[in-house]
Amino acid sequence: MTDFGTKDGNVGVMKGVISNISPGTNIIDLSHEISPQNILEASLILSRSFSYFPDGSVFVVVIDPGVGTTRRPIAAKIGAYYFVLPDNGILTPIIDAGKCKNEAIKIYFLDKKEFWLENISNVFHGRDIFAPVGAHIANGVLLEKMGTQIVDPILVNIPSPVHTNLGLAGEVIHIDHFGNISTNVLKYHLNEHHDLIIKYQGYSIPGLFSTFGDQPIGSLIALLGSTGSLIISEVNGNAAKRTGARIGDQVEILFKD
Amino acid sequence: MTDFGTKDGNVGVMKGVISNISPGTNIIDLSHEISPQNILEASLILSRSFSYFPDGSVFVVVIDPGVGTTRRPIAAKIGAYYFVLPDNGILTPIIDAGKCKNEAIKIYFLDKKEFWLENISNVFHGRDIFAPVGAHIANGVLLEKMGTQIVDPILVNIPSPVHTNLGLAGEVIHIDHFGNISTNVLKYHLNEHHDLIIKYQGYSIPGLFSTFGDQPIGSLIALLGSTGSLIISEVNGNAAKRTGARIGDQVEILFKD
Amino acid sequence: MTDFGTKDGNVGVMKGVISNISPGTNIIDLSHEISPQNILEASLILSRSFSYFPDGSVFVVVIDPGVGTTRRPIAAKIGAYYFVLPDNGILTPIIDAGKCKNEAIKIYFLDKKEFWLENISNVFHGRDIFAPVGAHIANGVLLEKMGTQIVDPILVNIPSPVHTNLGLAGEVIHIDHFGNISTNVLKYHLNEHHDLIIKYQGYSIPGLFSTFGDQPIGSLIALLGSTGSLIISEVNGNAAKRTGARIGDQVEILFKD
Repeated sequence: MTDFGTKDGNVGVMKGVISNISPGTNIIDLSHEISPQNILEASLILSRSFSYFPDGSVFVVVIDPGVGTTRRPIAAKIGAYYFVLPDNGILTPIIDAGKCKNEAIKIYFLDKKEFWLENISNVFHGRDIFAPVGAHIANGVLLEKMGTQIVDPILVNIPSPVHTNLGLAGEVIHIDHFGNISTNVLKYHLNEHHDLIIKYQGYSIPGLFSTFGDQPIGSLIALLGSTGSLIISEVNGNAAKRTGARIGDQVEILFKD
Repeated sequence: MTDFGTKDGNVGVMKGVISNISPGTNIIDLSHEISPQNILEASLILSRSFSYFPDGSVFVVVIDPGVGTTRRPIAAKIGAYYFVLPDNGILTPIIDAGKCKNEAIKIYFLDKKEFWLENISNVFHGRDIFAPVGAHIANGVLLEKMGTQIVDPILVNIPSPVHTNLGLAGEVIHIDHFGNISTNVLKYHLNEHHDLIIKYQGYSIPGLFSTFGDQPIGSLIALLGSTGSLIISEVNGNAAKRTGARIGDQVEILFKD
Repeated sequence: MTDFGTKDGNVGVMKGVISNISPGTNIIDLSHEISPQNILEASLILSRSFSYFPDGSVFVVVIDPGVGTTRRPIAAKIGAYYFVLPDNGILTPIIDAGKCKNEAIKIYFLDKKEFWLENISNVFHGRDIFAPVGAHIANGVLLEKMGTQIVDPILVNIPSPVHTNLGLAGEVIHIDHFGNISTNVLKYHLNEHHDLIIKYQGYSIPGLFSTFGDQPIGSLIALLGSTGSLIISEVNGNAAKRTGARIGDQVEILFKD
C-alpha cells in the first residue's frame, strides 16, 4: 500500500526488490492511490482491510511525508499480522483495536542496516528499507533481529463523532470510487437507533436502509457500509458528485426512534 | 474483473479472501475500471478476453448494481472455464458462443452459505460471496456442491448491426485507452466486403486497412481490431477525441465492392 | 510494461497468455500508464528500474507505435536480464550502460513463428508475439532458437545536458505522481558542484538539499532523486502544478561553488 500511483514504476521496483530477497512470495496490491501523504485515509483503508488477509501476512505501507528526515522506520506485529512502515501514526486504529482484543503488540525501530538495500537514497525508502524488511519477514526473519523494540509509536488523532441533543455530529472520512460517502459514525455509535435522518449539505437523507435496492434509483439514502460505518449513497448513482462531498465535511445525525 | 477501481482497497481485500481460502492461487486482474454498473462494457471485455486464459481458469466478475437485492449469485461452467458473478446478463455472449460451439454449459444458483464468508454484508458480495466461491472452485470444489442448477439465467440484449440498402448500420460499443472506437460490426457481418466507407460524425472514413502503419500519421482509418470487430482509429492519434465519440453512437457502413 | 492502461483488459489478456505457456511464472507490473507511444518516457522508467529485479527476469515491454508495420519484434539479453519488445529504441540507455560495464549483449530478430500464438492480429502483437516469447524465455527456451541475431537495433537520441559559461543547460524528462520534476542532469554531470541555483520557469530554486525535510513545507528545492537525477520538488507539495512543468522544458543550472 502506497501513495505512489502506478505510472512511475516505483511500485514495480519494490516488488522486484521483494522478489529478489524472497522469491515466490505472493504480493497483493491493497492500494497505490492513497491521496498523497494522507495518513488518515491510509489508516482507514488499512484498518478495515487487513483482517481479510491470511494470518502471517506482511503489510508494507509507504505513505511517507517525512522520508529522509529523522522519522523512524518501524515494523510491528499486532495479533497475527505484520506491518512495515514509517512511524507516522497509520497504525493507530489497528493498535487501538488490538489493545481492545488483548492481542500481543510488539513494535520495533528498524535500525539494523544489514537488512536494507546496500545503497540507501534519501527519497525512496519504500525501495531501500521497507520492501527489503518486508521480504525478510516473509522469509521468517524475526523482528527482534531487524530492530530495537519501542513503546512510543506515533499515534494520530482519529476524529470521533460527538453526541448532540438530537443525535450525533460526525464527519466525512472517505469517498469511494462509486461516490459513496463514508462517515466516522460506526454502528455501535448509533446505540440501537435505526430510524435516522442525516442532515448533510442541505439534504435530509433517510436511513437506515439495509441495501441500495430498497429505494428507487436516484434516491439519496443512508445505510451501514461493508465495514460498519454509516454511509450516504445515491441508489445506482454518485452521492459525492450530487452533494459536492469533501473529506472533513460535517454530518448531522438525528435519532427519530 | 470489477467496477470497483483500485483506490479503495476492495479489490485487494477480495484477493486477501481468495489467498486465505486457496493459498498460492495465481490471481490476475482483467480490469477493475469497468464504468460503474455497465453490464454491456463488462460483457464485451470479458467475452473477448477469457479464451486467452488457461483451461480451468475461474473468472470472478463483480459488476453488481443489484447488490443486496434478490438478484441471484451464480456460478457457471462454460466449456473449459468457470465464472462466478451476480446473475446480471454479463455472460450472454459467452453462453451464446458456447451454444454455437456445442459446449457443455451448466449454471448454478449459489445458495449454500457454508461456502461464503461467515458474515455477509448487504453491500459487498464481491468480498463475502463471489471471492470465496471462486477460491473454492480453484480448490476443486464442484459447482453442484455450492449451488442448485438453474436453466434461466438473465440474458441481455446485445445490439447487433442491421442491413441497409448500401451496407450496414452499427453502433459504437467501446472506446479504448488509445481512443480507438470499436463497433458492434464483426468481420463476418461484412460478408467478404472489404472496400468500405464508414460514415461517422460527419467524417467519411476509408477501410479496411490492415494496420495502423498503412496510412499517414493523423489519418482516420477503419480496420479490423484484434478481436475481429470493426474499429475506427487515428494513425498514432486519438480517434475518440478527434470525433467526440460516445458509446451508442450510430455508425453507417457503405459497401463499395 | 505497456502504454495500454488497465481498463480494456489487454494487460490481463497478456498475463493469461503467459500463464498458459508458463504456468506459475511470477508476473509483476512495472507500469501500464506510459504516455501513449512515448518511447523516451518508457526508456527512462525501464532503465532506472530493471536492475532491482532478480537476475534472469524477463521484461516484456510493449510501447508500439509501429504495430503491424515492418518494424522488427526483438528479444535481447543484456547482462543478467532479458527484454522482449518492438525494435523501437527503448533499450538505448540499457545497451549504452551494458557496453560501459562490458556486459554481454545479444539481440535477436524474432522470426520463428512457432513461438508465437497461432493467429497473429495486425494490431495486438503484445498478446500475439511478445507475451508468448517472454513466457518461452521464462520456460528456458534459448533466444537463438526463437530468432536470428542482429547487430543493428534501433537506437534513439537521449537528450544530454550541455555545458554553459555558468553551469549546465538541461531539460525536464519526467514528472512523477507527486509532481516531482526530473531533469536529464545526473549526479556525475555536476562534477562535484553542490551549491547550485536552478533557474526554471522564472523561479530561482536552491540546491542541492539532501532530502525533502531540509526546508519548510511549501519550499521549492532541488535535490538528487532516488536514481541520481537532479529533481525539482516542492516540500510536501506538487512542484509540477506550481510551476506548470512540461516534459522538454529547459532548465538552467548555475554553479555557485
